[in-house]
Amino acid sequence: MHAPDLPPVASATALEFRTPVIGASVGTMPSTERTADDLDLLDAYWRAANYLSVGQIYLLDNPLLREPLLPGHVKPRLLGHWGTTPGLNLLYAHMNRAIRQRDLNALYVTGPGHGGPGLVANAYLEGTYSEVYSGIGEDLAGLRALFRQFSFPGGIPSHVAPETPGSIHEGGELGYALLHAYGAVFDNPDLLALCVVGDGEAETGPLAASWHSNKFLDPTRDGVVLPVLHLNGYKIANPTVLSRIPDDELASLLRGYGHTPHFVVGDEPKAVHEQLAATLDRALDEIAEMKGSTRRPPWPVIVLRTPKGWTGPREVDGKRVEGTFHAHQVPLPATRTDAGHRAQLEEWLRGYRPEELFDDDGRLVPELRALAPTGDRRMSANPHTNGGRVLRELKMPDFREHAVTVARPAVESSEATKVLGAFLRDVVRGNPDNFLVMGPDEVASNRLSALFEVTGRKWQADTVPGDEHLAPDGRVLEVLSEHLCQGWLEGYLLTGRHGLFTSYEAFIHIVDSMLNQHAKWLKTTRAIPWRAPLASLNYLLSSHVWRQDHNGFSHQDPGFLDHVVNKKAEIVRVYLPPDTNTLLSVADHCLRSKHYVNVIVAGKQPALTYLDMPDAIAHCTRGLGIWDWAGTTEGEPDVVLACAGDIPTLETLAAAKLLREHLPDLKVRVVNVVDLMRLQPDTEHPHGLPDRDFDALFTEDKPVIFAFHGYPWLIHRLTYRRANHLNLHVRGYKEEGTTTTPFDMVMLNDLDRFHLVMDVIDRVPSLGGAAASLRQRMADARLAALQHTREYGEDDPAIAGWTWA
Amino acid sequence: MHAPDLPPVASATALEFRTPVIGASVGTMPSTERTADDLDLLDAYWRAANYLSVGQIYLLDNPLLREPLLPGHVKPRLLGHWGTTPGLNLLYAHMNRAIRQRDLNALYVTGPGHGGPGLVANAYLEGTYSEVYSGIGEDLAGLRALFRQFSFPGGIPSHVAPETPGSIHEGGELGYALLHAYGAVFDNPDLLALCVVGDGEAETGPLAASWHSNKFLDPTRDGVVLPVLHLNGYKIANPTVLSRIPDDELASLLRGYGHTPHFVVGDEPKAVHEQLAATLDRALDEIAEMKGSTRRPPWPVIVLRTPKGWTGPREVDGKRVEGTFHAHQVPLPATRTDAGHRAQLEEWLRGYRPEELFDDDGRLVPELRALAPTGDRRMSANPHTNGGRVLRELKMPDFREHAVTVARPAVESSEATKVLGAFLRDVVRGNPDNFLVMGPDEVASNRLSALFEVTGRKWQADTVPGDEHLAPDGRVLEVLSEHLCQGWLEGYLLTGRHGLFTSYEAFIHIVDSMLNQHAKWLKTTRAIPWRAPLASLNYLLSSHVWRQDHNGFSHQDPGFLDHVVNKKAEIVRVYLPPDTNTLLSVADHCLRSKHYVNVIVAGKQPALTYLDMPDAIAHCTRGLGIWDWAGTTEGEPDVVLACAGDIPTLETLAAAKLLREHLPDLKVRVVNVVDLMRLQPDTEHPHGLPDRDFDALFTEDKPVIFAFHGYPWLIHRLTYRRANHLNLHVRGYKEEGTTTTPFDMVMLNDLDRFHLVMDVIDRVPSLGGAAASLRQRMADARLAALQHTREYGEDDPAIAGWTWA
Repeated sequence: MHAPDLPPVASATALEFRTPVIGASVGTMPSTERTADDLDLLDAYWRAANYLSVGQIYLLDNPLLREPLLPGHVKPRLLGHWGTTPGLNLLYAHMNRAIRQRDLNALYVTGPGHGGPGLVANAYLEGTYSEVYSGIGEDLAGLRALFRQFSFPGGIPSHVAPETPGSIHEGGELGYALLHAYGAVFDNPDLLALCVVGDGEAETGPLAASWHSNKFLDPTRDGVVLPVLHLNGYKIANPTVLSRIPDDELASLLRGYGHTPHFVVGDEPKAVHEQLAATLDRALDEIAEMKGSTRRPPWPVIVLRTPKGWTGPREVDGKRVEGTFHAHQVPLPATRTDAGHRAQLEEWLRGYRPEELFDDDGRLVPELRALAPTGDRRMSANPHTNGGRVLRELKMPDFREHAVTVARPAVESSEATKVLGAFLRDVVRGNPDNFLVMGPDEVASNRLSALFEVTGRKWQADTVPGDEHLAPDGRVLEVLSEHLCQGWLEGYLLTGRHGLFTSYEAFIHIVDSMLNQHAKWLKTTRAIPWRAPLASLNYLLSSHVWRQDHNGFSHQDPGFLDHVVNKKAEIVRVYLPPDTNTLLSVADHCLRSKHYVNVIVAGKQPALTYLDMPDAIAHCTRGLGIWDWAGTTEGEPDVVLACAGDIPTLETLAAAKLLREHLPDLKVRVVNVVDLMRLQPDTEHPHGLPDRDFDALFTEDKPVIFAFHGYPWLIHRLTYRRANHLNLHVRGYKEEGTTTTPFDMVMLNDLDRFHLVMDVIDRVPSLGGAAASLRQRMADARLAALQHTREYGEDDPAIAGWTWA
Repeated sequence: MHAPDLPPVASATALEFRTPVIGASVGTMPSTERTADDLDLLDAYWRAANYLSVGQIYLLDNPLLREPLLPGHVKPRLLGHWGTTPGLNLLYAHMNRAIRQRDLNALYVTGPGHGGPGLVANAYLEGTYSEVYSGIGEDLAGLRALFRQFSFPGGIPSHVAPETPGSIHEGGELGYALLHAYGAVFDNPDLLALCVVGDGEAETGPLAASWHSNKFLDPTRDGVVLPVLHLNGYKIANPTVLSRIPDDELASLLRGYGHTPHFVVGDEPKAVHEQLAATLDRALDEIAEMKGSTRRPPWPVIVLRTPKGWTGPREVDGKRVEGTFHAHQVPLPATRTDAGHRAQLEEWLRGYRPEELFDDDGRLVPELRALAPTGDRRMSANPHTNGGRVLRELKMPDFREHAVTVARPAVESSEATKVLGAFLRDVVRGNPDNFLVMGPDEVASNRLSALFEVTGRKWQADTVPGDEHLAPDGRVLEVLSEHLCQGWLEGYLLTGRHGLFTSYEAFIHIVDSMLNQHAKWLKTTRAIPWRAPLASLNYLLSSHVWRQDHNGFSHQDPGFLDHVVNKKAEIVRVYLPPDTNTLLSVADHCLRSKHYVNVIVAGKQPALTYLDMPDAIAHCTRGLGIWDWAGTTEGEPDVVLACAGDIPTLETLAAAKLLREHLPDLKVRVVNVVDLMRLQPDTEHPHGLPDRDFDALFTEDKPVIFAFHGYPWLIHRLTYRRANHLNLHVRGYKEEGTTTTPFDMVMLNDLDRFHLVMDVIDRVPSLGGAAASLRQRMADARLAALQHTREYGEDDPAIAGWTWA
């Protein structure tokens, strides 16, 4: 970031305000080098952006109003949001001025994503739009195409979207603007993210918590976020909370969040231009002073209070619109059929004086074009906003060096995530500014503490003697908010870096809806040629449903897998490595992959190991396969025992051993599934198994007892088209859990070894009387296990310590 | 709430603090009527609660240490959380004193849900525990049972749980304590909720946003929440953000949230008792003064900074534990096998001087028992915490009065949710203090504006001229946070009231994990005899996946249904009423129901009506059924067209009409599904249809083309065990959407009428050459529809205006 060119100037602070009435002008700022001409030009640029915004919402044709506005010039369906747009355009124009004056490396995060027309307009004014979309040139035909495509079938969304150059933040679900901005500037010391926070969005939980992101920002090695809280006062149909508390209370809140607030308030353009220019200068001066601090500085925040739908129709049909929630979407409805509204629209558009803004060819006039930055300095073309373009590959250590020795399967134990921690440590070591691990206070709990051998937890709040592993530039980000972890990581990935999010399995549902939005981004950008692929979003879920020893029922939920699998097949991958070496292999694969959502579920407790590293790699590469050593047949089996997940695999193997002992003639095949998507047909998912291969594994007609980590119906859902589906019997989690022991937990859900054997007996018709007695013995064994647990408070050691040996 | 008995006393405020070092004592408060003896007794009560808490975590036997502690007295698995518990016990003891002095009607919301042992201990000390659990008496045997059951197989969870008397807030996912507290006090003007907010929880989004709940609290008609922000400084393995910012910044934050902060800081019990007693008195005095204000008052908040794991082991194995995150769970591990740890445990326990606290029989000594409130004044027995006990039935208006006339099916139009709005208006009118509607700024957008004919939006922030429908006691709560809506409603329901949450379908995923926790609460309490059933949690999802005209792809997601259906069958119900009268009937049913999660999905756009009210009631009562008028056969059909959801129903009917016109000999049956759970077998869900009935509707062997509102595989998941499942072809949402028109949207997902006809042709083998040519015509019609849309920006009027006529 460059040092300021201008000396600091005086600015309004909150304390000078006396509860300004909304829309009131509150005096002008002293201007230094800003001449009236400068601000007149800036105003003209703002008018151009506003004109293009309204044009996109309304016009099919006659883009510069070179002829009177006729019904056929207006779109039949008026879709889009005007209310927030003029404020976004205002900030964009002022940022352009600052970027040029200070040669800033800046991007623009649009919290009020409804303002799609504004961000598209600005990208167009800067020339970026025409560079990436050849059909939208800088001429009359281009303007016409620009307007027509907006919120039009086959065109572009009405929100800020992946299609919008310069965006890393889609308009959709609100609440994540600040998080994306912070994620973007982490490890980008020269980058400034201007982040507009809408006063609607500010009411969301994630946004409210994300103000505290500044406690994690390193003033030296990270860039800076300049938040602008835009109080236009209204949401869809309600006032906003933050616009309806006294200014001193709002200032106190922002100070409490660790910011220095600056207020800009008004509804008269000239006065607001002067105030905003001075305030932005001051904020950027402060940032230049604070940058590099060793302590957390009170970073500036700007509060901008301007009318909703500013410069739009003041009244429509006798009802006040500008400055109220009625300006939220389309202020003038039915302009094709209502001549009065159409006349008002024409007056509104002509009020921006397009004839002064665009030349005869429809091109922005040169003196305005000169106001925009050029090349990569344009916020719509900043390379960080097209993360794949600046992505540096991870330098991957050799995961095989972390392999655990597995002389015989299912005899030795290892803590899978603990070993993974050492591998991740090496990833961090090799990629000191390009890889982050996020965790909601669960990195150590999930046994990844080896990370702290080479890095700390990123931390810029106060420290006390005795603190462990805190560091301003730590590679681990821990905060008790899955929303913050997810949002920061998204911002980091979207700007071309790599990362991993580790969480308790049950509580990852907190970010279900954030995952939706990111998966939609990935799906959409895959089809946008100028968007380069990103690093994958990687989840490591541990402390899973089967091992909530300290916690119990409220901490049990494997449904994130169901949620993820609803997303587009080309985006999502789900892995259930059964042991340590398979976890290493899967993790290596995921960290190298691009543009996916990878979900890995793995246990953190000491657990049996099954495969040495060569076998693990082969097994993970196939994604599923027969474990010959665990079965009793090389040919066609009588029954297939399938399993996915560490605990189900353990119980399946124990069941296989019981069957081997008690029913030695029964031909049993054991199939383990690592890559869940292999179960789907290849017509449904790129990893899907062709029917022929599926049938070869699971047979066409033999009973399959499938022990699954998650809800059992997910397996049915993935396999319902398979020939043998009617013979598939799935055991999984069925919402039966309490505070209990590991084995009691599987018993509660009928997924224990004894029950699996009973399932086999129930479903292999050829088994006779001997099986009936075995069935009774299994039922007795379950009862004995239950009684032992209830009496002693722990599992029978013979069960807890079971091995294949 | 009673007026204060004591005059206000001086108290520390934040500004008198100079960044106290954690654990430092910061001077005592002047005491007024509190004598040293009073506080000595209070300290003894605290010691009793702490003793019982440690006992629960560690002891199997020898509950009062009447003999030396032996290995067999200690639990084999030590599960639970000590760290937060002493702070919770401290506040509980001080609240008891205040309740008795002021005859307060109070409940205790435990944000740090890990503190299960503390809340159980206090319920036991007050006698409530023994009243509801006859096996846990107030004697030595009862103490032994109390200790043994804690976090023990077959016993109780380690967290605050439904099993804990006095709890409305389960220890699980963090972030909802303040929301539950506010929900509890809405419309309970005499109720005080003491709400402990952990400094870990305070980092979550929902908690951060929920401080603003005070902008919605009516000081006259609602009760009061007294938040206590408990800074013990650490989470599982990290410091907390709010404990590591300067006190003046924290005070500024809390003032910005609209509170008056009071700090209590220390690690010396006597001094903290004095400070806390004085501060609690002062806060309660302030509340008594502020109660009834016409403007929003600066409600007090207490910041309590005491060591984590206070009074526990100071050091273990040479490592500092008390006052660090090492005190989070079980400070002394392996006490059964490690004699040194066991000795330290015994010393720790004896340090509470149990011999002074419990008599020979193991009963709390009378002078301590006298410190607890009695009867319903006990926080563990407050009737509001067992909501079903105080639940008043809704006075239901007759929904049939809102019926729309349906002379012929599929000819006239109506806006379903708009009509529902009028019904809800009447519900509000009849239940002015017992029913709330929650919406994230979407009540008007979802067309429920008739509500505002009789009530306003609950609002206690500032107002300006021109505001519409804001009122301190409004029955509609709108804030742009699904978390806040959900949390408030949960608190309101848990304390025995009724409500409805209306949201956009896509963004209801924001509360996926909150739904999990509430569903778990419902499932668990169903099996607890002393917990009375609650009113159901009702969702009305509108602005659904098929009609995101203004928004597009980022606003499309029907997956909440999948998520809900993962929960326990006896709890969840999903309804997809196809038109206005069915929506009314379903809504009436849901509002009357108990202890369910009801999800209703309904469109808000003008749409065709199909059933008059008697037919609608009959159809909804059956949950699904054949629509004879739409089919072409009374006997066995050649093909079944099934549908669930308003848009799929429309497309199915249009397809049926096309088939009737073009293939008049084809025997078509149309089945509409309202109650999704009817599709499951009766062995899986209480609403499930027996196979015989299912087969009678869907046949055993004929093709079924099922047009579904959500992801198609949900239908497969619900029906995979049915005889005819292999012939079931489901069309639904498959993540294909963009900014488009309604008909283009169904085309993108192959759910349009033309494609459904093509599906029939593809799957009814007996159709010959005529069908092949019809197939081509259908493909042509799709292409024409697509071209029309792309050219004109709207659907062909013949398609958009289709009726059965």
